[in-house]
Amino acid sequence: MKQLTVELGERSYSIYIGQGLLNRAELVASHVSGRQVMIVTNETVAPLYLERTKALFSNFDVSVTVLPDGEQYKNLDTLNIVFDQLLEQRHSRKTTLVALGGGVIGDMTGFAAACYQRGVAFIQIPTTLLSQVDSSVGGKTGVNHPLGKNMIGAFHQPNVVIIDTDTLNTLPKREVAAGIAEVIKYGLIRDARFFEWLELNIENLMALDPAAVAYAIEISCQCKALVVSEDEREGGVRAILNLGHTFGHAIETHMGYGEWLHGEAVAAGMVMAADLSCRQGWLNTDDVSRVIKLLQRSALPVAAPEEIGVERFKSLMSVDKKVIDGTLRLVLMSKIGEAFVTEAFESSNFEATLSSKPQLQRL
Amino acid sequence: MKQLTVELGERSYSIYIGQGLLNRAELVASHVSGRQVMIVTNETVAPLYLERTKALFSNFDVSVTVLPDGEQYKNLDTLNIVFDQLLEQRHSRKTTLVALGGGVIGDMTGFAAACYQRGVAFIQIPTTLLSQVDSSVGGKTGVNHPLGKNMIGAFHQPNVVIIDTDTLNTLPKREVAAGIAEVIKYGLIRDARFFEWLELNIENLMALDPAAVAYAIEISCQCKALVVSEDEREGGVRAILNLGHTFGHAIETHMGYGEWLHGEAVAAGMVMAADLSCRQGWLNTDDVSRVIKLLQRSALPVAAPEEIGVERFKSLMSVDKKVIDGTLRLVLMSKIGEAFVTEAFESSNFEATLSSKPQLQRL
Repeated sequence: MKQLTVELGERSYSIYIGQGLLNRAELVASHVSGRQVMIVTNETVAPLYLERTKALFSNFDVSVTVLPDGEQYKNLDTLNIVFDQLLEQRHSRKTTLVALGGGVIGDMTGFAAACYQRGVAFIQIPTTLLSQVDSSVGGKTGVNHPLGKNMIGAFHQPNVVIIDTDTLNTLPKREVAAGIAEVIKYGLIRDARFFEWLELNIENLMALDPAAVAYAIEISCQCKALVVSEDEREGGVRAILNLGHTFGHAIETHMGYGEWLHGEAVAAGMVMAADLSCRQGWLNTDDVSRVIKLLQRSALPVAAPEEIGVERFKSLMSVDKKVIDGTLRLVLMSKIGEAFVTEAFESSNFEATLSSKPQLQRL
Repeated sequence: MKQLTVELGERSYSIYIGQGLLNRAELVASHVSGRQVMIVTNETVAPLYLERTKALFSNFDVSVTVLPDGEQYKNLDTLNIVFDQLLEQRHSRKTTLVALGGGVIGDMTGFAAACYQRGVAFIQIPTTLLSQVDSSVGGKTGVNHPLGKNMIGAFHQPNVVIIDTDTLNTLPKREVAAGIAEVIKYGLIRDARFFEWLELNIENLMALDPAAVAYAIEISCQCKALVVSEDEREGGVRAILNLGHTFGHAIETHMGYGEWLHGEAVAAGMVMAADLSCRQGWLNTDDVSRVIKLLQRSALPVAAPEEIGVERFKSLMSVDKKVIDGTLRLVLMSKIGEAFVTEAFESSNFEATLSSKPQLQRL
């Protein structure tokens, strides 16, 4: 078992990574703040891991809320189901919420914990690769709005994150790939050597080889923990974690939440970020090729759906949280392992990237 | 003009109190974080003060959201109207929300500001006595749930609070009285001399004599600011600000939001707290009489509606935020000017207070 720490002063917390952690009750016991626990999960995860998770909290009064599964349910209406349950079961503000599931469950449970009685404790038990390497760490919580992803939310850090890598064995291949998109992101923004490791080991990772999985999750969480420690509320460097996300959110919003997996949209978005960086002359074409090839080997999309069109794309991106006073800021790259936030790109290049066919076909 | 400060380190802010402040654009300009401003108000306040408030922000891009008026609309659905407007008008996370209205508008606007893009700036311009002396200061924001008041919310401090006492001239008498309930509360919990001043000046205050109003608001805000500075997130002393509120919330929830004004329910609740304190032998009957008399002179109710009944009352109070691991904690009094939080009251006394007729009739 590996233990990492997200250093945030009095809000610091541990991330435990390993096999069989869903049997290790001692890891969670000290992080429950009162007697009450509410496990929030979904219809897909509950049959697989709910009983073991309940056993993990057998010394406490446990309630359970099972939500429908899917990004299309990540909204205020579904959040209200959690509040209904908390109030009907008389949970006090000393209760502890436990998120058992993927990123949608983690984001919604965390946001419910941020708002219930103005803030209660919560524990992340992510069961998808994407949530294990990304959304369970860092305290970003929230729900979607029909006009934009994650537009309503809060920063609310968990008390502990328990990553049992065994849970990946029940994860559909498509979701494994979606998680790998975020893993690749860490290589692209901060760690060229990790990107090279991924180029050598991507098939092992896709096959869920335990050593490869453990290493990829550890490096990813370490990167995320460092960036979050530097900049908890995204005043600066944390924004680079959004490489590919502004493009990706537009794809997700246009297609309807749940049609494209988040990681798939981010994969296409990272190619678009690389493409725009290249058109600006900041990234060379070899690096763009390496990005595309690694994503393709991971069975991930490398272009947005043609149907969106440039004008619709621009409109969708203009409501992104990276827009400040009307100016769109994007995470772009200068080389593999180095990303930065900028608004200083040519609009002609930006539009060419959004139409995107010529450049991608050339590679 | 008076200026008070709520001392909260980097989240400190000023409260300005005086006549004609809605004409003083220089008080707000430095507190707007970007170019965009969204004024949130309601159908009652908009015809009275919206134009002047827009003029106050004439150097910025101003949008307006007008909500229906009333506690019954303080819920997630109404909150969503604010999010819809913010997104449709393309407000970025550098936007500033302005709450123009009473406590419902302030609480909802503050909560919208806490959650929109995970947190944006906001300014409080309270226009009712109750919001001027209580809810606009201290950063408690939120909405109601059918099962409990203010159950969903966040701590989110404003950048500045502008109290233009001229706005009270358009306030219905019933709402002036409701505000006076919270003013009396400050005397009861921390300031016996202020309670005595109120006993001497209550008619002037009800008649909105400018000097009496200015003094009562200043002392109230000063008390609130001190308590909040000591305990921002209500880990301890801040709870005494809830004198009468746990009883009062039960009345509001039972009667249906909007039937009883918040201040009216708090008034009845403070009598119940005094009654229970007296039954415990902690407060003498003379003090209970003084509490009841001052509230009666303020045209406020001094008992809960009989229809609620003891069992329903207990059930409603058991979902209050003051319940920790199943134990109800209440703010009670040892004398006028001294309150404390306790769970150590006899359940027989508690039930007698909830049925309440004998003790009150005796006085």
